[in-house]
Amino acid sequence: MKGAVLYGPGDVRVEALEDPTIVEPTDAIIRLSASCICGSDLWPYRGLQPVTEPTPMGHEYCGIVEEVGRDVKNVKKGQFVIGSFFFSDNTCPHCRHGYQPSCVNSQGVLGAQAPLLRVKLADGTLVATPELPSAEMIPSLLAISDVLGTGWFAADAANVRPGATVAVVGDGAVGLLGVLSAKQMGAERIIAMSRHETRQQLAREFGATDIVTERGDEGVARIKELTNGVGADSVLECVGTQESMWQAIHATRPGGAVGYVGVPHGLALDGWDLFFTHVRLHGGPAPVRRYMPELICLVLDGTINPGKVFDLTLPLDQAAEGYRAMDERRAIKALLTT
Amino acid sequence: MKGAVLYGPGDVRVEALEDPTIVEPTDAIIRLSASCICGSDLWPYRGLQPVTEPTPMGHEYCGIVEEVGRDVKNVKKGQFVIGSFFFSDNTCPHCRHGYQPSCVNSQGVLGAQAPLLRVKLADGTLVATPELPSAEMIPSLLAISDVLGTGWFAADAANVRPGATVAVVGDGAVGLLGVLSAKQMGAERIIAMSRHETRQQLAREFGATDIVTERGDEGVARIKELTNGVGADSVLECVGTQESMWQAIHATRPGGAVGYVGVPHGLALDGWDLFFTHVRLHGGPAPVRRYMPELICLVLDGTINPGKVFDLTLPLDQAAEGYRAMDERRAIKALLTT
Repeated sequence: MKGAVLYGPGDVRVEALEDPTIVEPTDAIIRLSASCICGSDLWPYRGLQPVTEPTPMGHEYCGIVEEVGRDVKNVKKGQFVIGSFFFSDNTCPHCRHGYQPSCVNSQGVLGAQAPLLRVKLADGTLVATPELPSAEMIPSLLAISDVLGTGWFAADAANVRPGATVAVVGDGAVGLLGVLSAKQMGAERIIAMSRHETRQQLAREFGATDIVTERGDEGVARIKELTNGVGADSVLECVGTQESMWQAIHATRPGGAVGYVGVPHGLALDGWDLFFTHVRLHGGPAPVRRYMPELICLVLDGTINPGKVFDLTLPLDQAAEGYRAMDERRAIKALLTT
Repeated sequence: MKGAVLYGPGDVRVEALEDPTIVEPTDAIIRLSASCICGSDLWPYRGLQPVTEPTPMGHEYCGIVEEVGRDVKNVKKGQFVIGSFFFSDNTCPHCRHGYQPSCVNSQGVLGAQAPLLRVKLADGTLVATPELPSAEMIPSLLAISDVLGTGWFAADAANVRPGATVAVVGDGAVGLLGVLSAKQMGAERIIAMSRHETRQQLAREFGATDIVTERGDEGVARIKELTNGVGADSVLECVGTQESMWQAIHATRPGGAVGYVGVPHGLALDGWDLFFTHVRLHGGPAPVRRYMPELICLVLDGTINPGKVFDLTLPLDQAAEGYRAMDERRAIKALLTT
């Protein structure tokens, strides 16, 4: 098969790779219905995270089970399944508390920008749909695997409640689906921070009631203005830089919460400053597995359509162009047909 | 009157001060039934926080109302009242959300190590008891003003729930009352981190089920050992240093919470490290005012006896010896009779 491999900053190649096979009895092999490029793939693509060896890319996936190891009980050949970007056993104490990326056996997924994927810990990781979904459902089901699950966690970690005022920092696909998630959780007012017209439109479609184009201290001042000087109840941090994190913290009212899912790069929090904000912090790699059964229902019954974040579709062969388009912010998120 | 004034590191003097008077119509003057020295007073006493001018010390207080300004409605002359270490109006949006130290009109209290105190925003700040308490109740009622309220907030911010496993970092008066608070909130197992015998005993009396004497990575390893490798559900951070904060974070299970109330000194949190812990953080200056009505009931009906943290009683004149005894850890907390 052919798959996308990152050789170094800006250097993605689609090249011949060995077909994956069952190695452990708990593995499954799935044939991917589609793959895609994640905002977090751009960190190493931009040289902001080291690439020490050619690395098979991609960690979002859904598709049809081709084969299962002898110990796999929960999914079987021919089923349509979705998995999270962390393999997890879903039985250890951390999994039972709902924090599957911290599973004692967790491993990050690699190599899902390809037609076939070896899924480890298949029983814990995969959730099957009741029947095979139609083709037009695929983008929204694929989104669950990371980008929706992550936006959902941001909203949940930010403690979004019915009637809440919510602000979202970051207008990438995760931020936009954070808007959608906050709306689903009953937020009354959702302020999306974006200076990009296409993304503003999608944010409004997903439920944003206000758009703030200012950033940093000015962005914070604008949110204070929109909330009678109080600040937002819940703020979703979907970027991961020093500026965006403090923007999120300072836009939150005392006692409010920041849900942070942007992978931190060069970010340090001064304890003294944080102390006097009275802001709650929760975040990390999203426990998508916890939310998957609910999110699958919401997609299949048509309540939400997160697949709208895919505004570019390319064949896998052209993965490099997908990376370029996302890097240059010409595309929100690129879907790769396998 | 005479009151304690800090001139510089290690230099506390009890000297003649002007009697406070009503300045604003929202002020009250109270005659203090007792005063005390706070762990946070030790930061400037030790030179770890600058002292730029002679500073009247003390921010914990309870006593009898002597006089009220013409706008004061909620308390009257002759009542016994308790206040928090932040004056607050208790009507602004932050107060209504329960975060009174972030009140738009908040001011820190100074000068309570004296016989008389001017309480600003008296209607918002003070809570009166139904009747005059007996003398033996005074230490426990005084403790509400800061040290119990702060321990209580640590437990609340750490999300302590019935049946929870809790660890407490710091065996000062706040940490010990954090143990008491966690017990009241229904924690099943409470691990106190202390290497000081007197404090260990009091921790056990307040509800600690286990004592851990190790610190840093070894302390974390010990807590993991005691919790089958999982970590505690809730950890109370009652110190405020880099080491104690990371000890708290790493002792918490993914998805668990750290309630941090130790005033941070030289503390910075690396975003990347924090991200992968999956730990919730909440803290800051304790909103004691929110908890006061409930805590007053618990003290008056004899459910809790937080005054036990005062293991040294001195006349106000000897405040300097109280500071020394606490600095040298000869005393947990010194009560000053006025």
